[in-house]
Amino acid sequence: MKIAVIGIGLIGGSLARDIRLIWDQAEIIGMDVDAGHVQQAIELGLVNREGQWEEIPQMDMVIVSVPVDKALTVVPHVLDLVNENTLVMDVGSTKQPLCEAVQHHPNRHNFLATHPIAGTEFSGPTAALQGLFEGKTNIICEVEKTAFGLQERAMELFRKLGMRIRYMDPQSHDKHIAYVSHLSHISSFMLGKTVIEKEQDERDIFDMAGSGFESTVRLAKSSPDMWTPIFNQNKANVLATLEEYIRNLSRFRELLEADQYEALYQEMQHTNRIKEILNGIKK
Amino acid sequence: MKIAVIGIGLIGGSLARDIRLIWDQAEIIGMDVDAGHVQQAIELGLVNREGQWEEIPQMDMVIVSVPVDKALTVVPHVLDLVNENTLVMDVGSTKQPLCEAVQHHPNRHNFLATHPIAGTEFSGPTAALQGLFEGKTNIICEVEKTAFGLQERAMELFRKLGMRIRYMDPQSHDKHIAYVSHLSHISSFMLGKTVIEKEQDERDIFDMAGSGFESTVRLAKSSPDMWTPIFNQNKANVLATLEEYIRNLSRFRELLEADQYEALYQEMQHTNRIKEILNGIKK
Repeated sequence: MKIAVIGIGLIGGSLARDIRLIWDQAEIIGMDVDAGHVQQAIELGLVNREGQWEEIPQMDMVIVSVPVDKALTVVPHVLDLVNENTLVMDVGSTKQPLCEAVQHHPNRHNFLATHPIAGTEFSGPTAALQGLFEGKTNIICEVEKTAFGLQERAMELFRKLGMRIRYMDPQSHDKHIAYVSHLSHISSFMLGKTVIEKEQDERDIFDMAGSGFESTVRLAKSSPDMWTPIFNQNKANVLATLEEYIRNLSRFRELLEADQYEALYQEMQHTNRIKEILNGIKK
Repeated sequence: MKIAVIGIGLIGGSLARDIRLIWDQAEIIGMDVDAGHVQQAIELGLVNREGQWEEIPQMDMVIVSVPVDKALTVVPHVLDLVNENTLVMDVGSTKQPLCEAVQHHPNRHNFLATHPIAGTEFSGPTAALQGLFEGKTNIICEVEKTAFGLQERAMELFRKLGMRIRYMDPQSHDKHIAYVSHLSHISSFMLGKTVIEKEQDERDIFDMAGSGFESTVRLAKSSPDMWTPIFNQNKANVLATLEEYIRNLSRFRELLEADQYEALYQEMQHTNRIKEILNGIKK
């Protein structure tokens, strides 16, 4: 098995790490606009060596794990180069723009659009984790447009990674993910911003920060290089979620201002059922 | 050592659990408005038996760990009953209203106002955890108003629990904690609300929820019984933080609406330094 990973960051690197365990004979080559990342990935044993564009036609699998704006040009370019038996997958957090970008490509059937719901707030090859995908969900879009034999190869990998598969159209993916992922990142970034801005004497305040603050602000450590193009590509959905979020916060503020504590209690109690919902997913 | 814990939930129960290990001869009695909680605490071995108000004068230490509105009447009542050698401590998330409520009490010097920055999103005696306070910060207010010998007894406990001590006036405590704790809870509750409200078909969306969503929405599992009175008592500070948070979110929305991606990038990059700040605290 010959595999190219284009973009060896948290996701690409973690995939390479697991693939090495799954197919120990695999040759994994790495490509990245950041030459330092390729070097690190080699040193960390994530990839065997640096790859070249000329080698794409020899690949069995090409994983494109670059920021979503870059994917719009990288994936079509890879599809230009593939042989008929090369599986090309992306792993981006938005699906509609990329699915549209490749819809008329003559090698569209070589491509599978995926979004593994896994990650941490860190980035780069040193952030790559073994077993990151175990038990996680992988959203696959427009599966019917991918050649059947290549679907099977992808499914074999996902099964060996321990992932659950869900099929979804790109529009639904982008709408839903705005709620459960993109909005969380904004709420966390702005929480971090609010607290940093307010407090001049950082030690005073951050010494008081407990695990609750750390948990809600964790995503504010995420990479702007990754997230700016996601917000751009999913602008309409993100704006809709953000407006509702601001509306709910404003209502909370008004209730507090008016001393409506019974209503505040109800708001919180009603939201407590997130507990059962999240427990539900874990099963 | 005779110790009474009034309110045997997450914090009171966790303290009882650790005290049992620190002073193995201690007799710990428990009191709670919920008789079921006392029974559970006995079964879990957190306390020896149910306590009575008449026993308060025999105590060496009384820990009041009840919701902050209840503390305003429970702490003065306990102070009415103590002997001159009884240490009374509260553990509430607001400090100014309670410090004011006891300021003219003839036994004010028996009281120490504390806020251990520790907890989880769960509540009740079954949520009590061993070692919860290890390495955590304990904010102590108006230490100079507590009898010196009783301060020493409290410090011995906190040292054995492994806590770091910080002294602060109640006004500063309530202002700072609004940013690093109270606002986080509101941002999380409203995030949970926004997502729950939006999605009729829960499985569709919550199957897509990753660790990022779970992390930011974790505090939305918190108890409204505990949090409603906190928001009430810290109303002015919480309103101020909430207004700034909403302003920052609105600015983010405006930048996205206007396709100002470079500015969005800067907002996120600037907030990334929360990473170093949080790492800083850990040391």
